[in-house]
Amino acid sequence: MSDSVRLTLDEVHALATETFLANGGSPEQTRAVADTVTAAERDECKSHGLFRVPGYIASIRSGKVNAVAEPKVERLAPGVVKVDGFNGFAPLALEAGREPLVELAREQGIAALAITNTHHFAALWPETEALAERGLVGFAFVAAMAYVAPAGGTKPLYGTNPMSFAWPRGEGRPPLVFDQASSASARGEVMIHKRDGKPIPEGWGIDPDGNPTTDPDAVLAGAQLPFGGYKGASIALMIELLAGALVGDLFSFEASVVDPGDGGPPRGGELVLAIDPARCSAGGNPVRHAEALFARIVEQEGARLPSDRRYVARRRTPIEGITIPRSLHDTIQSLREG
Amino acid sequence: MSDSVRLTLDEVHALATETFLANGGSPEQTRAVADTVTAAERDECKSHGLFRVPGYIASIRSGKVNAVAEPKVERLAPGVVKVDGFNGFAPLALEAGREPLVELAREQGIAALAITNTHHFAALWPETEALAERGLVGFAFVAAMAYVAPAGGTKPLYGTNPMSFAWPRGEGRPPLVFDQASSASARGEVMIHKRDGKPIPEGWGIDPDGNPTTDPDAVLAGAQLPFGGYKGASIALMIELLAGALVGDLFSFEASVVDPGDGGPPRGGELVLAIDPARCSAGGNPVRHAEALFARIVEQEGARLPSDRRYVARRRTPIEGITIPRSLHDTIQSLREG
Repeated sequence: MSDSVRLTLDEVHALATETFLANGGSPEQTRAVADTVTAAERDECKSHGLFRVPGYIASIRSGKVNAVAEPKVERLAPGVVKVDGFNGFAPLALEAGREPLVELAREQGIAALAITNTHHFAALWPETEALAERGLVGFAFVAAMAYVAPAGGTKPLYGTNPMSFAWPRGEGRPPLVFDQASSASARGEVMIHKRDGKPIPEGWGIDPDGNPTTDPDAVLAGAQLPFGGYKGASIALMIELLAGALVGDLFSFEASVVDPGDGGPPRGGELVLAIDPARCSAGGNPVRHAEALFARIVEQEGARLPSDRRYVARRRTPIEGITIPRSLHDTIQSLREG
Repeated sequence: MSDSVRLTLDEVHALATETFLANGGSPEQTRAVADTVTAAERDECKSHGLFRVPGYIASIRSGKVNAVAEPKVERLAPGVVKVDGFNGFAPLALEAGREPLVELAREQGIAALAITNTHHFAALWPETEALAERGLVGFAFVAAMAYVAPAGGTKPLYGTNPMSFAWPRGEGRPPLVFDQASSASARGEVMIHKRDGKPIPEGWGIDPDGNPTTDPDAVLAGAQLPFGGYKGASIALMIELLAGALVGDLFSFEASVVDPGDGGPPRGGELVLAIDPARCSAGGNPVRHAEALFARIVEQEGARLPSDRRYVARRRTPIEGITIPRSLHDTIQSLREG
């Protein structure tokens, strides 16, 4: 028997859906999370795909997450819309805010979506890519739990704090998107190394005494490091402020305190920004102009656009399907049985 | 005779002012640039202080910069204001856009300032700090000339592309601000190493053949590297798009093509964003909440807030003055004589 299981994308979606429904998820919360998990598998972002389902389910079972929450949309200012997730998962809250944000950005030129009281366990490119597909420039910022040491320090304080940026390309081309942790690695990557019994690269983290280590367990007990030294730490700090204080939600260190340790997504907020390029330059065509830059990147040997690898996977997985470890498949099967 | 010259901040301002006026700068352009140069010396950001004056003057003498330009303010959308710098230096254009941006951000919750047709040779913290002193969250993004290789590539394409972020602290505390190049080092730092005949640290750049080097001349002829590998390169790419295409101005590689090689500031745009924290969280107090995070940072041994070093210098230099190399002082004196 193979160590891995091959699934079509429809089977991924069905597996996630059945598992969430069996654990009390509302149809809407379930569909939104299953869409997000399936999109991650489709693009071969394995650490945000089915790998996350056990954590999601644990957070329902612990009572941390309200899996039947109905997000509420409210306009706070001419350029600011807020979505209260009422303690549910982030994907449905993001969906609820998407069209209001698109409308606002087109009307105002620039707009912000402040998401609060959600639990985010996914990549950020789904939300920024969706904005760029509508012709807007998108930004998203999310905090997490206290995992990463600040510049000069050795104790965990910041989350892995990803940010995503998307730029519309027009003429049927998929948007240019990046989505990167402000830590040297995503938390999920450290967890996958631990699961697979592999050492992590140097520079990802320090042990509880502040010493460099390649042992994933030591880093999970100690602290992850920001990418690129103090400059990455500045980005992590900015994201704490944007996804925490600015939107009126928790900092990563506060999310750690209230978290029951169920292994699921932390409680927190998210900031999404959208800018309409058609409203920012008098008379020019920013989307067409950007193609000149992209051409200069890809003409360099070895260089590629940040999202290219995902788009290659996206063309392949609908045909070939995806694989997950049999142990993960077994775990999800058992969770589906409730 | 000492190798350095000590000046009061008033003398710094007077020296810059006289030099610009002697070279045909209008009183307004001159005052704005002299304010910016003096603020850099006050905060001991030496690479943006008087060190830049010879380059500024060279760009007037070459005919690249219009030193009597009068910036024009225009509202492009409810949340977007544009300033056309008419080929002058950036500081006056930024001043012209500041109050309109503050007003818009308070009214709309979030607003953008698109600066075009300017020449930027300064740090970005002056513009973001000014927003945070008015209670707003500020962001600024600027491109440069083709200096930095893209992820995976070896040829210069991006500028050193700094971004700055500022957060208001209230209660008389100076804002939290960071301002960092998306290259491993600022261009000015490489230039200062070259001037002083010192090797640069590893990781700052590659030679024209794409090999790592610590020779500043080889890096100035080859390419600088982004900070933090491909993640820093993503930030550099984002900034190209924001300060170039989005506002309707040049990319760094385009600015290189039109530049006469006078050693002065490149032509280009800038994007400044402002968010009013009072309009983004329903009922909370983001500014007070943020202090809990800052307290957690500074309680860690070895950790500090990004702007602390500048504020320490800012308390000292009004009393002690600043020093510059005598050779630089001599050069500026000779430029002042026209």
